Amino acid sequence: MKSRHITPNFRIAVVGSGAVGCYYGGKLARFGREVHFLMRSDLDHVRKKGLRILSKQGDFHLPKVLCHADPAEIGPVDLVLIALKTTANAALDTLLPPLLKPDGSTMLMTLQNGLGVDEHLAERFGADKVLGGLCFVCLNRVEPGVVRHIAHGHVEMGEFSGLPLPRTHEVQGEFKRCGVVCSVSENLGLSRWRKLVWNVPFNGLAIAAGGIDVARILADEDLFYLTRQLMDEIIGAARALGYEIPTSFADRNIENTRTMGDYKPSSLIDFLEGRDVEVEPIWGEPVRRGFNAGAPVGRLETLYRLIRRAVRARNG
Amino acid sequence: MKSRHITPNFRIAVVGSGAVGCYYGGKLARFGREVHFLMRSDLDHVRKKGLRILSKQGDFHLPKVLCHADPAEIGPVDLVLIALKTTANAALDTLLPPLLKPDGSTMLMTLQNGLGVDEHLAERFGADKVLGGLCFVCLNRVEPGVVRHIAHGHVEMGEFSGLPLPRTHEVQGEFKRCGVVCSVSENLGLSRWRKLVWNVPFNGLAIAAGGIDVARILADEDLFYLTRQLMDEIIGAARALGYEIPTSFADRNIENTRTMGDYKPSSLIDFLEGRDVEVEPIWGEPVRRGFNAGAPVGRLETLYRLIRRAVRARNG
Repeated sequence: MKSRHITPNFRIAVVGSGAVGCYYGGKLARFGREVHFLMRSDLDHVRKKGLRILSKQGDFHLPKVLCHADPAEIGPVDLVLIALKTTANAALDTLLPPLLKPDGSTMLMTLQNGLGVDEHLAERFGADKVLGGLCFVCLNRVEPGVVRHIAHGHVEMGEFSGLPLPRTHEVQGEFKRCGVVCSVSENLGLSRWRKLVWNVPFNGLAIAAGGIDVARILADEDLFYLTRQLMDEIIGAARALGYEIPTSFADRNIENTRTMGDYKPSSLIDFLEGRDVEVEPIWGEPVRRGFNAGAPVGRLETLYRLIRRAVRARNG
Repeated sequence: MKSRHITPNFRIAVVGSGAVGCYYGGKLARFGREVHFLMRSDLDHVRKKGLRILSKQGDFHLPKVLCHADPAEIGPVDLVLIALKTTANAALDTLLPPLLKPDGSTMLMTLQNGLGVDEHLAERFGADKVLGGLCFVCLNRVEPGVVRHIAHGHVEMGEFSGLPLPRTHEVQGEFKRCGVVCSVSENLGLSRWRKLVWNVPFNGLAIAAGGIDVARILADEDLFYLTRQLMDEIIGAARALGYEIPTSFADRNIENTRTMGDYKPSSLIDFLEGRDVEVEPIWGEPVRRGFNAGAPVGRLETLYRLIRRAVRARNG
C-alpha cells in the first residue's frame, strides 16, 4: 500500500448527510477542505441557507456548502465518509461507484454503527479500501441544515484489513487539524466490540423498557443488573472471537454513563420518532457472531428479539 | 402416614377466595361438601347473594355459602385449599394456624402457581402437611361473587414430600366426585417445572412485549422464537435439577396454545388491571434454581428482570 499525501486537492464526499455526516463533514469544510455533501431531503434548504452547527465548543455556520443530489456531480474523491443509516445500505451499490477513483485509491470510511458495516463495503468495493471510523458523539439533527452537538466527538479510526497504514494516520491528522479529537485503532474489530459494550445495553434497554433514558436505566436495580450482564455477554462473545476486553472496561463505561444525565440513546430517539432503528448491526450481528463462536448470548438474543419485535410492532 | 377416609364430616377451608378458590371451592360445595370460604373484599356480597359460577359446562349458583372473615370462626379442618396470591403469602402465618387440627392431620393443598409455594408452607407448617394442586384452568373473576370459567379445569395433585400417599388419591377421588377433572402426580417438582414450560414464556412475553395475547405471541416470528428458546431453557434447568421433560413437551405446549385464540394469560390480566403479579414464583425462583444448578438461564433472567421492572414502573 503506497503512502498517500493529503494535499489541498484532497477531495472528500459525505454520503448520508444526517447529523453525523453534517457534523464531521462540516468540521472538515470549516477548515477549508473540499467537502461534497450528498443530500436528499435537506438539499434545497442547505443550498440556500448553508449548514449550521450548534455546539458548546462554539457554534459555526457554513453559508456556502458543496451539496449534491447525485454522486455523479461529485465525481471521484480521495475519501468517502459514509454516514447513511445502515438500514439504507443497499443504496451504496449505486451511490458509491461514481465516487471511486479509477486507480482504486479512494478510501471508504464508514462512520456507521455496529457490526457488519465494514464487511458490507469490503464485499462490494474491496477490503483494502475500507476504514471504520467509530464516532463517540452525541448529536441531534434539530431541523434541516442544523445539527446540535451535545457532547463528546471523538473518532476512532481503523483499517478493516488489519494494522494501521500510513494513510490511517494521515486521515487522522487531517481530522485533528480540523478540530476533531481522533485516534487510530490498532484493531478495528476490537474497537467495534468495545463500542458495543455500551451500545447494546443502553440503546437496547432504553427501547425494551418502553422508552427511557440512561439515568433511569442506571437507577433501576433490575435494568442496572441486566446492563452489567449484557456487558459481560458482549465481553465474552468478543473474547470467543479473539478480542480481549477487560471486565474493568464495563465498569468504566457505567461510571462514564453516570455523567450523561438523562441522555436518550440515539436508537431510542430513532425508535420514538418513527425512524429506522439499526437493529441488525447493533444487536442481531453480535448475537449471530457470538453464537457461532460458542459464547453464551441468551441475554443479548432476548434483547435483540424484543427490540426487533418492538420496531415491527411500531411500524404496524 | 396413616390413611385417612373422607367422610361426610370432612371439612374444607378455602383461603384466598379469588377466582381459583371460589371455582374449586364452589364445585366441592355444590356437591354437598362442607366448604368454608375465608373472604375479605367479597364477604358481604357473597353472604347476601351467594356464589355464582358461569361456565359452558353449566352455570350454577350457590345461594348459601359458608363464608367468614376470620379463620377462628372456621376452626380446624381436614383440608385447606390455599388460593391466595403468592404475593400475599406472609398472611398465611396468621391465617392458617386456627385451621390446623391438633393431631397434625390437616392437609394444606396450595393451588398457587410457580416455584417456592410448597416450600413456603413446608417451612412454616411441616412438609408432611403439604400437597400441591396445579390448576390448568382459565378463570376470570367477573364481579364480586361471580366467576367465569372460560376453559379447562384439570387439577394435578402431588405430595410435596415425595410419592403419592393414600390421602393424595382420596382427595383426588373427592375432587372427581365433585366434577373436577383431576390426576395424581408422582413427582410434584416435575409437575411444577412442566407447568412453567408454558407459564414462563406466555405469561412473560405477554407482559414484556407490552400487553399482548397468546395468538399475537405465536404470530410474531421473534416472539415465537423466544418462546421456544425460553421453553428450552426451562427444560434444561429442570433437567439440571433432576426433572426430565422431553423437548416434545414444548412442541405440544405450543400446539395446544394455538387452540386458545386470543387468550390473555392471567399474569398479563393482573398486570393490566393493576393487581400484584406473581413475579418471583413464576420467573424469579426458576432463574435462581436453574442458575444454582449450573443451567444457562440468560433468556429467563432477561425476561424476569424486564418483567420485575415493568411491574415496578407500573406501580409508580
